[in-house]
This record gives sequence, C-alpha cells and structure tokens, in this order.
Amino acid sequence: MILRMSSLFVRTLRDDPADAEVPSHRLLVRAGYIRRTAPGIYTWLPLGLRVYRKIEAIVREEMDAIGAQELQFPALLPREPYEATDRWTEYGDTLFRLQDRKGADYLLGPTHEELFTLVVKDLYSSYKDLPVWLYQIQTKYRDEARPRAGLMRGREFVMKDSYSFDIDDAGLQRSYEAHRAAYIRIFDRLGFDYVIVEATSGAMGGSRSEEFLARLDVGEDTFVVSPGGYAANVEAVTTPVPDPVPFDDVPAAHAEDTPDTPTIATLVDHLNTAFPREDRPWQASDTLKNVLMVLHHPDGTTEPLAIGLPGDREVDAKRLHAQLEPAEVEPMTDEQLAKFPALVKGYIGPAHDGRTVLGEESESGIRYLVDPRVVEGTRWVTGANVAGKHVLDLVYGRDFVADGTIEAAEVRAGDPSPDGSGPMEIARGVEMGHVFQLGRKYAEALGLQVLDENGKLVTVTMGSYGVGVSRAVAVTAEYNHDESGLRWPRAVAPADVHVVAAGKDAEILAAAERAVEEMSALGLDVLFDDRTGKVSPGVKFKDAELIGVPTIVVVGKGVATGVAEIKDRVTGEREEVALGDLAARVRAVVDA
Amino acid sequence: MILRMSSLFVRTLRDDPADAEVPSHRLLVRAGYIRRTAPGIYTWLPLGLRVYRKIEAIVREEMDAIGAQELQFPALLPREPYEATDRWTEYGDTLFRLQDRKGADYLLGPTHEELFTLVVKDLYSSYKDLPVWLYQIQTKYRDEARPRAGLMRGREFVMKDSYSFDIDDAGLQRSYEAHRAAYIRIFDRLGFDYVIVEATSGAMGGSRSEEFLARLDVGEDTFVVSPGGYAANVEAVTTPVPDPVPFDDVPAAHAEDTPDTPTIATLVDHLNTAFPREDRPWQASDTLKNVLMVLHHPDGTTEPLAIGLPGDREVDAKRLHAQLEPAEVEPMTDEQLAKFPALVKGYIGPAHDGRTVLGEESESGIRYLVDPRVVEGTRWVTGANVAGKHVLDLVYGRDFVADGTIEAAEVRAGDPSPDGSGPMEIARGVEMGHVFQLGRKYAEALGLQVLDENGKLVTVTMGSYGVGVSRAVAVTAEYNHDESGLRWPRAVAPADVHVVAAGKDAEILAAAERAVEEMSALGLDVLFDDRTGKVSPGVKFKDAELIGVPTIVVVGKGVATGVAEIKDRVTGEREEVALGDLAARVRAVVDA
Repeated sequence: MILRMSSLFVRTLRDDPADAEVPSHRLLVRAGYIRRTAPGIYTWLPLGLRVYRKIEAIVREEMDAIGAQELQFPALLPREPYEATDRWTEYGDTLFRLQDRKGADYLLGPTHEELFTLVVKDLYSSYKDLPVWLYQIQTKYRDEARPRAGLMRGREFVMKDSYSFDIDDAGLQRSYEAHRAAYIRIFDRLGFDYVIVEATSGAMGGSRSEEFLARLDVGEDTFVVSPGGYAANVEAVTTPVPDPVPFDDVPAAHAEDTPDTPTIATLVDHLNTAFPREDRPWQASDTLKNVLMVLHHPDGTTEPLAIGLPGDREVDAKRLHAQLEPAEVEPMTDEQLAKFPALVKGYIGPAHDGRTVLGEESESGIRYLVDPRVVEGTRWVTGANVAGKHVLDLVYGRDFVADGTIEAAEVRAGDPSPDGSGPMEIARGVEMGHVFQLGRKYAEALGLQVLDENGKLVTVTMGSYGVGVSRAVAVTAEYNHDESGLRWPRAVAPADVHVVAAGKDAEILAAAERAVEEMSALGLDVLFDDRTGKVSPGVKFKDAELIGVPTIVVVGKGVATGVAEIKDRVTGEREEVALGDLAARVRAVVDA
Repeated sequence: MILRMSSLFVRTLRDDPADAEVPSHRLLVRAGYIRRTAPGIYTWLPLGLRVYRKIEAIVREEMDAIGAQELQFPALLPREPYEATDRWTEYGDTLFRLQDRKGADYLLGPTHEELFTLVVKDLYSSYKDLPVWLYQIQTKYRDEARPRAGLMRGREFVMKDSYSFDIDDAGLQRSYEAHRAAYIRIFDRLGFDYVIVEATSGAMGGSRSEEFLARLDVGEDTFVVSPGGYAANVEAVTTPVPDPVPFDDVPAAHAEDTPDTPTIATLVDHLNTAFPREDRPWQASDTLKNVLMVLHHPDGTTEPLAIGLPGDREVDAKRLHAQLEPAEVEPMTDEQLAKFPALVKGYIGPAHDGRTVLGEESESGIRYLVDPRVVEGTRWVTGANVAGKHVLDLVYGRDFVADGTIEAAEVRAGDPSPDGSGPMEIARGVEMGHVFQLGRKYAEALGLQVLDENGKLVTVTMGSYGVGVSRAVAVTAEYNHDESGLRWPRAVAPADVHVVAAGKDAEILAAAERAVEEMSALGLDVLFDDRTGKVSPGVKFKDAELIGVPTIVVVGKGVATGVAEIKDRVTGEREEVALGDLAARVRAVVDA
C-alpha cells in the first residue's frame, strides 16, 4: 500500500498549537494526526486513524483471544436503566444529558454497565449460560470539568469496555484474572512502562479493583510503590494504623493562650517558645488540624463534615473525593461556619473543658472523621474552641473520640507502606486500564438473576474492565518521541517505511518510485514523499522525523552511484544499500 | 475461526417482536442479530456486528479504491459551524441538541458537511491541493419523528459520508461521477436491486442530485420510472407543462349556485346534472381545488400559502415538503382561516367578479402557487368566494394568475413522463445512497477559498455522498430471507458454514468436532452448533435456517456410514459427502 505525500490529507505545522501542554498532544497535532474540534473533542486525520486502528486491533485481538465476545451498544441511551442504578444522578455534571423531540430523557453513554446487564438479562436465564464475557470498543462521552492533554482526557473518546458475568465469586475471580492477564498482554504489546496498582472503586460500586497506570510524569494519577511490591493509586493508599499508645502518664488536658498563631507553623513556634518540651521540640505532627468541609450529595442535599488530621499534612482533594463520592466536597465557607456557634474559627478542636464540639453527638452535631494515625492514647495540641487558645495534652480515647476514620491526608514519599516493606516512592501515571470486581450491585439494581443448579434464582456477579483506546494513541506518542518528532513503535506506526525522494531530478524521482513500488509489492505499507515543486529535501527530512515512521529511506544523490540510505528513526543509525537490494533490505528491517 | 453455539452470545426467538413491521426487522431480532435499546436505537449482538463489519468493509474498500481518504470526525459537535450554515435552525426537531456543563451548545452530528469544509480550510490553501475526496464511516444521529422498521430508519445509525472538494464545476462533475461509479460497485457487490433516480436536494442545498434506491415494497421512498429510462424520486418528478390553450371562444366566467357540494365528487355530480357539457361529462380534473396551508419557518415565523391544483389530485405531503423545506407545512386550521374574511370555506377561488382573493397582491395577500398543469387558457370550475356558489369558465391568464407554480400534486402511475417516453410506472424503494453536487453553499458560508493558478482566491465547490451502512444490513436481510429465516449472501454472511451436530452420540459430536476443526484449518469461519443437553436436532435445524448462514452442514446419523450432508440454505439442495472429504468440499462450495 502506498500513501503519497503529494495527495495525502496531511499538513505538518512548524509551530506548536497554543493549547497543547504535553508532547504527545503537541506532536500529534503538528504532525497532522489529529485536529481539535471542540474542547476535549478531536478529529482523526488519516494518519491518526491508521495508528488508532492498529491499537484498536491489538486490543480486539487480545479480547478475542480470551474468548470475550464483541457486541456494540448505542452511545445514545435512555435514562431509565441509569435511573435504576442511580447513576443518572450520581454522575452529576459529567454526564451529557439531552432530550429527544418528545421530551424523553437520554444520555450519552459514559460507560455501559447497565446496558450489558440488561442484555444478559434479556438473553440468558441459567447458570449453564455462564460465565460470559462481553465487550465493545466504542465511543464514550464524559463532560469532564477539565479536558486536557489532547487525547489523554477527552470528552468524546474511545474505550474498550468488557463485562464478565458469573454465577459465584470464584467465577468472578477467574473472569477477573483472565481480563487482568489480557490487559498485561495488551500493554506489553503496546510497549508501555506500566504498573498495576490497587485502586478505589469510584462511582462504580464494587470491591476489588486495580488500575494499569502508564508511568508518565504528564499523568494525572499519582501512585505509590513500596520496596516489597505494594502498589496503589494514591487515592487507594491505606495508612498503616499505629498501635495504641499508653497514656497513663499524660497530664490532664489544659488550655493555653496562643496569641497570633494563625498557622500551624506559628503555633509550633509559639509552643516551642512558650511551652518547650523536654524530650524534643514541638513539631507540626504534634498538632491536630480540624478541617471543615461541606458535602454536596447528588440528590441535592448538603452535609457538614469535620476532618481531623496531623497538622503536618494537608487534605488531599483526590483522596478525600475518592472516599466520599458520589458526593462533591467543598471547604466550608465562613458564612456556613457562622451557623455553628460552637466553632471558633482558627481555634476549632473536637472537645475540651467539658464541651464536645465535633462529632454527631456534639454541640455542632457535625460528623467528625479523623486520620487513621489518630489512635487511642495519642496526644494532641489542637483548638480550644475559644479565640486565642489551644489545648495541649488532649488524648484520643480519653478526652475525645471521633465518629470514624478517613483516608484524606496527603500521602508523601517516604511514608511507611501498608505492606510493612519500608518507605513508599511516589510517581505519576496515566490510567490505561481498569479491572474491577463489580459484584452484584448492577445485577441487583436491574434484576439480573439466573437459575442455579438447584433451580433457585440467584443474582449474577459481574466484573467490569476498561481500556482507554484513543488515550493509548496519546500515551504511545508520549513514550515514543524526541525533540524532532514522533517515533512510532512498529506495531502501531501509520506505515512501515517512509520513503523520501530527495531531489527534483527525474532520475531520483524514477528511482524512488521504482523502490516504492517494489516495497509495496513485498507487502509493505509505504508513506512516499513524492512531493515536487517548492518542497526541499530539508523540509521532507523534517516532516519524516516529525511524522515518525520507524524506518526512513532516502533516495537522493546516491542514485547516481546506485545507492539509497535507510535510516532508523529511533537510533538514528544509517545504512547505505544498493538500489537493487533496497526493497528486500527494508522488508528485512521491518520484519527484524 | 470457530463460533460455538454453546457459548455464542445469541438466543433465537420463536415469536416475532411486537414492534417489528417488516421482515428484516423481525428476522434480525428473532435470529439474534440486533436488539432494540430505545426507539430507533439498536444494539448489535455478536452475529449482527459480524454482518455489519463485512458490509462496512465493502464500502470502505470501494471508497479507498477511488482514492478517497478516510478520517473520522466526532459525533458530538459544537454549534458554531452549523450556525454559520443555518442548519442549526433548519434541521428543526430532527437535530439532537444538548448543552455541556458550561452551557455551551452542542449537537449530535446528523451529517458533517460543515466539519469537512472546515478541515479542508484548515489544511489546504491552493488549487494544487485539489481535488481531494474525504470520507468517514461514522455514527450519526437524527431525531426522526417516526423511526421505523428496525435499522431501516434509526435515530442512531451508521453512515459513510464522503465529500469532494474541487476548484471548478468540471472537477466537481468528475468527482461526482467517480463517487457515483463507486456506489454502483458497492451496491452491485451487496447484490441490491437498485435504481438510480433523480432526487431533490433537500435541506442540503446544491444542484444535481441522485439517489440509489433499493427496490423494496417496504421502502419509504416512492419513485417513478419511464419507458425511456427517466427515473426520479417522486419528490423530484417534474410535471410536463402543457402548451397554452386558446381561449378566445371561452365565455366570460360566471358564478352558479352549487348547493350541497362539499366535495369535488358532489360538485362534479351537480355540474353534470345542473350544467351538463355538450362534449363530455364534467370530471374532477375540470375543477380547481385551492388548498390552504401554513408554513412554519425554522426561524419561528409562519406564512400562509394557497395551492391550486386540479380537483382530481391530492396534495402529496412529501412532494410539498420537498418544495418548501426547511419550512414545515401544515393545513390551515379553521381558526387561522377565519382571519382572512375574503376566504369562504368550501368555496375558495382565486378571483371572480372583479375581486382577487388569492395571491400576494390580492385581498387576502396569501401567496398563491398552482400546479404546472394550470397554464394559460385552461378553464376551471372553482370556488366563487361566496357560500354555495362556484364559478365556471374561469380562465387562467384571463381571469386569474398565480404567484408561481409548485410541484405538490400527487404523481400517479400512468402520468406522462417528463422525458416524453410515455406513461410512468411507480414503485417503492429504500434510499441506500445519495450523490449530490453541493456546489459552493458550504464553502461560501464557512469561507473555504483557495488560491487559483493566477493567485486569486476562489471558492471551492463541493460534492456530498452518503451510504447508509447500518441500513444496508436491514436491506440485505430484506432481500435475502424466506419464511424460515434469513439467508445471507456469502459476501456478508456472519460465517461461511453452519455445522449442526445432529445427535447426542459421542461419535457424532466427535465427528462434527473433527470436521469443524478441519474446516477452520482451511480458513473457513464456522458457526458450530455444538449444543448438547435438551437441544434437539430439530431445534438446531430451525435455528440454522433462521440464522441463515448460506451453507449448512449436518453431521448426524450418517456418521455411522461415514457421511455428512451439505445443504444450500438458498436453494435447499442437499449433497451427501464422505466425512473425509467434507472440509475440502465445503471449502470448494464456499469458493464457488
């Protein structure tokens, strides 16, 4: 197959697009693979579509290989099934909603759990029909608040989503493992440097869940790894809970004047000056910071929430969100705070002096959750609920208790790993795949039951498995580029070889044309820069580097002595080959 | 490749789905190819997706063969380009509109002229870049008032849309012919019985336009053909205009009492009784019926319209709509009529007795358009604008004139063809393709200009070409079925051969398994009914007939004597083959 640059619908750009923050986005636009149509909504130009299709084919092959069956749902979906599972509401602003001419509610599918559940309910009725694994490769829609990085986080994007249906948990476990193994093969074939991390379940419900994160600094996901192999999305990291501390020797809690201590740092300084410790200086982690938030539930109601955490840590918005979704969380405003007279801004503490101020049973009635490090016997400096005063030696389990714990504090490099194997490292990645034991949530909501061996109706258990197919194009580009442009891995390159006719002599053009025909006859897909007119060899070379086909052939002045040059786009290595051997040699290079 | 019925995600239905009006819809649902998700919105089950993909591949091959280049636009599109061409408004209720979380307007693409125009404007700038032919195979959305017949008229469907861009009309003509030729190849390969008819341009603007209609009684389109080869969609049929008639001998128009003549038929009876003609009886075609309508323009304004046509013909709603779109047309209500005191219901005529009642310059001011048969000198019986009276001998050009003509009257079998070759036949069909010389409408609206040879900016001229890809699945099924089920043409069948293991003996199952493996090894796609348990051979045979793979192999009792049976699904012919030769024989049958 021959693609001729003289007629191919592509134009390379000299300059970076203004809105492109990451290399893959910049280069995919500049090299003529994609164009932006609206925020987070892209058009595939011919070269981009070729790469996309190759990645899609790899995903399809691996899904077919495990025996998953492909079908295809619509993208425009009726409201009712999503109403039954509450996701019509829970998805919030992320769901594109619309009405048809009769006023019936529709949505653009963000993911298809409901539909898959219903189609299995429609077709199947017996344990003998299970397990079944179904998938589709389909355009999905999410109205992201912040679409970014081109194809990385779009509002219209392609996802492969699979679902497994099993009669019991052991079956689900097998289905899960099979998909997990298929994903390993997919991302291995794509050449990604990925890590499989524990994940939270998000709005999907369910239990066990892992993400395949492509390690990339441009990624939006943060994950941790421990020396012992623990790996988790930062949202899923669990804090090792310390043992209770004896507190028999701790003096009674006592409030002290702490003027001019608006921050944890000024408070610590003041403590070290006014109330120096004998054993060591006070530090931020001795203080208990109480942060007030407001939850906005999908049903429109709101709820205040207080979070207590060591003063050396900030609340991590993503971790907090993961714990509380589908609710949205916002800091409590001063106006909202004013409605709780027990709370004195800047000096909020859970309890002191016979008053209980935070907690469902307290004066404020505000639910109070603390960091898991706040265990029995730990002693804290925290607000005394009086302006200008903090309380010292406030002991958890003696002087105050919380309604529960919450994993909302930031995770830091060096934090102990929950597997006990030592300090954790932190890195960033792009979520490429997600495997997920949904369990029975959707089957229950939509009534998917089958008869078991004893003729009894049982609810089916499900798994859900996603791969970002269009995102994989961006991630591949992110891994495979240099300052001159893209450099595609062979498996997904838009062509096998890029032949540059470098010069205007009829002899050169004829030799290039002949070589291209021979390569095509050998089954190679050739991108042929046959442009004449004002396009100089220099421009052609630049375009070839930018477009990034892994093998570049230059047919130029060497024609006079019967040779052409083969250049490896990645290593830059060059090789001179006799024109007569050129096609065969390129075939060998491609097959190597 | 082997698809095993024991695990394939398919269930056949004994009964027709309640909402299925046409055979293809009925059978595609019953045989487990598709399922309805919402009105006009369908899910492809695995077998359906296989057929769909084969049809899609045929379309793609033929587009690639003429040098068209594939790209892919999003389905979710911003309002602005459609605003620039007025289609945001003109599409009316048929457009699915929605807003994103920021309140920006979006639509689900019904067709992509605007986007293609803009991408060419983005990439190209010179006559040297042209012509270029671009296409996509993509999911489209139209909120049809009456989705029907399954995949035939859906609200979410797949269309291949191409667009040509040329510097001049001669180029457009060449682009048009190339696409037309490609469509002929596509529909020939699909085995359709189609006719290429002249079409109206609809909401798309532009000039020359033809439709590829698949001849089918279940079709929504009506077309005519003449003995001389004229063929047109009924909406595009032009009425041969008669020569003017001398009217020197016609007496002056005279009003007569016509009591109790609420219909044309009663009027004609009354005329024949009270005012008998000497030459022949009065007939309906001697009367001029004036029909009052109201146009609803996309901008929300309304406009009254009067249509005068021979009393023997009805207004054809589709022809009328085609003439007036993007306006919607409705009959004028009595309430609206009451606002025009010059109009007397049941006795409306254009003019009489010194009064002009219909026409832009008349008492009513209502625009008045007449059938092309109403030419100078024709004499009519029509309303006298007085209750109980009609006027006779009212002559066009002497006693009244109209503001223009309109092709709104029904077309009948036997009507004279505009090519003069004799009476026309009428038939029904399904629109499968549409080729269309758009001209410069979109390029002008969106500013697509390129430099010509002299360095002057010229507006590009465009063609637009569509194929209904998902609809083609239904049409193929419509052509290829019998009372037992589907019978796919080989080119699009979901498998090459359907092997039925007819019996529960281990020997039969083993022989069938062996045969299937051998066929698969020969490169055949085998649908293998390996079901055991309660599924009888009878059920398996029925399912095989229903599913409609063109070749059915029965491995049953014959195994005892070393033979199996090959059955042709279309002809019903059976052939006994030795098990040892079976795979090779099936391969030969498939390749024949």
